[in-house]
Amino acid sequence: MEISADFDLMITNGTVITMAEAGIIPDGLVLIKDGAIVWVGPRADSTPTLNAVRTIDAAGGFILPGLINTHVHAPMTCFRGLSDDQPLMRWLEDYIFPAEARFVTPEMTYLGAKLAILEMIASGTTTFADGYFCEDGVVKAALEAGIRAMPAQGVVDFPAPGVSDPARNVTVAQEFLSRWQGVSDLVHPAVFCHSCYTCGPDTLQRAKDLARRQNTLFFIHLAETKDEVSMLQQAHGVTPVRYLKQLGILDRSTVGVHLIHIDEADIADLAMTGTAVASAPESNMKLASGVAPVVKMLAQGLRLGLGTDGCASNNDLDMLAEMDTMAKLHKVTCGDPTVLPAEQVVSLATIEAARVLGLDDRIGSLEMGKRADLIVLEINRPHLTPVYHPYSALVFAARGSDVRHVIIDGRVVYDNYAFTTLDAKAVMAEVTSLAGKIGAGLNIS
Amino acid sequence: MEISADFDLMITNGTVITMAEAGIIPDGLVLIKDGAIVWVGPRADSTPTLNAVRTIDAAGGFILPGLINTHVHAPMTCFRGLSDDQPLMRWLEDYIFPAEARFVTPEMTYLGAKLAILEMIASGTTTFADGYFCEDGVVKAALEAGIRAMPAQGVVDFPAPGVSDPARNVTVAQEFLSRWQGVSDLVHPAVFCHSCYTCGPDTLQRAKDLARRQNTLFFIHLAETKDEVSMLQQAHGVTPVRYLKQLGILDRSTVGVHLIHIDEADIADLAMTGTAVASAPESNMKLASGVAPVVKMLAQGLRLGLGTDGCASNNDLDMLAEMDTMAKLHKVTCGDPTVLPAEQVVSLATIEAARVLGLDDRIGSLEMGKRADLIVLEINRPHLTPVYHPYSALVFAARGSDVRHVIIDGRVVYDNYAFTTLDAKAVMAEVTSLAGKIGAGLNIS
Repeated sequence: MEISADFDLMITNGTVITMAEAGIIPDGLVLIKDGAIVWVGPRADSTPTLNAVRTIDAAGGFILPGLINTHVHAPMTCFRGLSDDQPLMRWLEDYIFPAEARFVTPEMTYLGAKLAILEMIASGTTTFADGYFCEDGVVKAALEAGIRAMPAQGVVDFPAPGVSDPARNVTVAQEFLSRWQGVSDLVHPAVFCHSCYTCGPDTLQRAKDLARRQNTLFFIHLAETKDEVSMLQQAHGVTPVRYLKQLGILDRSTVGVHLIHIDEADIADLAMTGTAVASAPESNMKLASGVAPVVKMLAQGLRLGLGTDGCASNNDLDMLAEMDTMAKLHKVTCGDPTVLPAEQVVSLATIEAARVLGLDDRIGSLEMGKRADLIVLEINRPHLTPVYHPYSALVFAARGSDVRHVIIDGRVVYDNYAFTTLDAKAVMAEVTSLAGKIGAGLNIS
Repeated sequence: MEISADFDLMITNGTVITMAEAGIIPDGLVLIKDGAIVWVGPRADSTPTLNAVRTIDAAGGFILPGLINTHVHAPMTCFRGLSDDQPLMRWLEDYIFPAEARFVTPEMTYLGAKLAILEMIASGTTTFADGYFCEDGVVKAALEAGIRAMPAQGVVDFPAPGVSDPARNVTVAQEFLSRWQGVSDLVHPAVFCHSCYTCGPDTLQRAKDLARRQNTLFFIHLAETKDEVSMLQQAHGVTPVRYLKQLGILDRSTVGVHLIHIDEADIADLAMTGTAVASAPESNMKLASGVAPVVKMLAQGLRLGLGTDGCASNNDLDMLAEMDTMAKLHKVTCGDPTVLPAEQVVSLATIEAARVLGLDDRIGSLEMGKRADLIVLEINRPHLTPVYHPYSALVFAARGSDVRHVIIDGRVVYDNYAFTTLDAKAVMAEVTSLAGKIGAGLNIS
């Protein structure tokens, strides 16, 4: 074949896990120009005299699509481990809500998002869907870091950080969208209604209308706890899913987060409306919320992607660890070791996650024409030796710290374990200082 | 206080997590001489003019007891990821048993154990209880690496690697004990009967008698699957636990591994006899064996420790990851976020695990007089920032790769991320070469 001999970046000497039709390419090569993948294939098929501005030697490791985290509250890194092992309501009411009321500011979300992005980049995440308040801080952090993001402004029917008057909640979201839509190819602003029990029907519908008008996604925590289901049943006589369906909110641009306590009819409603799902198993386990019927949802053809949730309920943002837990949790709860095989789990963190976010035309797999979001994983380590199957090694043995290079939109943002866009040391020092104030403020020893 | 000013090793500038009465010491100091801990306490309480052969600066990180893995099959690192996502019997009969029959040799167990020990050391494990065939290889690897180990020779009633005549199974175990007992303070040889369904009652009793005579531990996989319980019920009309009790095998020197499918009466029998338990949640999840009633067993006062199981069913030996999964799995399956709080989970991988192995007089906590088995964890990393509670950071955010120094019996075996006793590169290359032959032999593409 013929290849133009002028590229920005060449990644070579690794096993390319494309998550596309090409499957796994044992000794592969990826060529990047202007932020896009212009060629991917076996090294043997490429022109011998390639000429790239820079070449990354994958040293026999894995080259794969950047991981896509479909649900996170990035600023909550500042609350990582603030309170664990508590009953859900005590956790929320004694720790998280007071901490949020007192300490969430535009500066805090910017700082916490930078810390989250450092952690995400260092563990191979190249795109994240976020939902929080003062979401401008998350956008700014993402732009500064050069990470792809879908930051969604939070909407609730009570005073929230940055939205002292709840009557303005949807307006604030609208202003957020106006401010950031079209500003960068990397940032896709969206809307995040916290839940059916913190937003009334009018708010839900107005927020969804806004998302529709602005052609963006609408996220909502949905059927996360048994209490939520009871509440909706008592107030409206229907399940949370059916409630949103009746309100006209379920469609292909709505992403339901968690979907744990749902029945067959709910799954059918999600399938019929094309609603997508973000599943965050570690958070659901740690908070004892329950186990989402992921295998059943996938069997009904739902678009479903993996997420970590925020650091107050996980407590990390490591998608490789989350993949491992996702597979194991559903094997044991289904009583069937064949469910969620490794390759499928990798897809839930890459191409399927891209489908959930409606970005699969540009990211999620290594294919010609897609944006160059990819990671290089070091495998020359005891815990990754030997490799019989790359998917198995990724899901059941690799961890975030094996990520060696991260490229987003063609730019190397993590280079041989070093950050190139953010000052990690400064961010960590600032968060540690803030955490001292938070701990003192909440009387945490 | 007065301290003799002559130490082999001083570890300073870190938070000491003692897992003893002293609790957590924010700015602590550990002094080591002749392989023992001779002092641990606040740095401010120590003599200002300390004089040690070497000082390790923990750089603000955590200093804690080395982790203790109560159940592993070290040589099976050679089969890591050989076959996943399979029904249990197909996994065993089409992959693991044929691989073991053809490829388990004294050279293979030595090589596989070296790889396992590299992985364990690099993720903070300083003691492991092993069970396999050709167990001499594991002992040799442990001695070479300088890791503390309880290697148990496998016993089954069919021809096994190194034991072609099953009539000699207990004799081979006896010879193993004779060969290695008393050879090194680091190695505690033991006996491992595979299970109640692979060993007849006579074998079980003779193996237990051997262990009793030699004053060592007896390990056995117990109540791991529903099939095992049905089999025992059909053959003997009792549960696996009751069966062993009737055979006189349950006592304080027996460690039952897994204990998943058990009832209240079984737990009472385990408690009454003082039998200890090794629980390996990730393996139980991946093989869909089930969820052990760990919370109930702990409530009955059983000695219970954490283990990883072998690499064919996990697929890693990372105890920090296993701690995270242990906590989360039981929270969600009990429907209660307060069970297995972080501090307790750390104890299951340190002092409680030492109790399971009967080694709590010498390891499992940082106390004066105990052997110096400890690790230093780097916390100056995005995913470990901030730290509100050290136990929470350890269980819910740290991972094996955060371990920076490992000291066993006073010897630094992992020094600023570098192995000092084994040649990791050579071991990995040898295992990769062997895996090529195993894959080809089993027709694995």
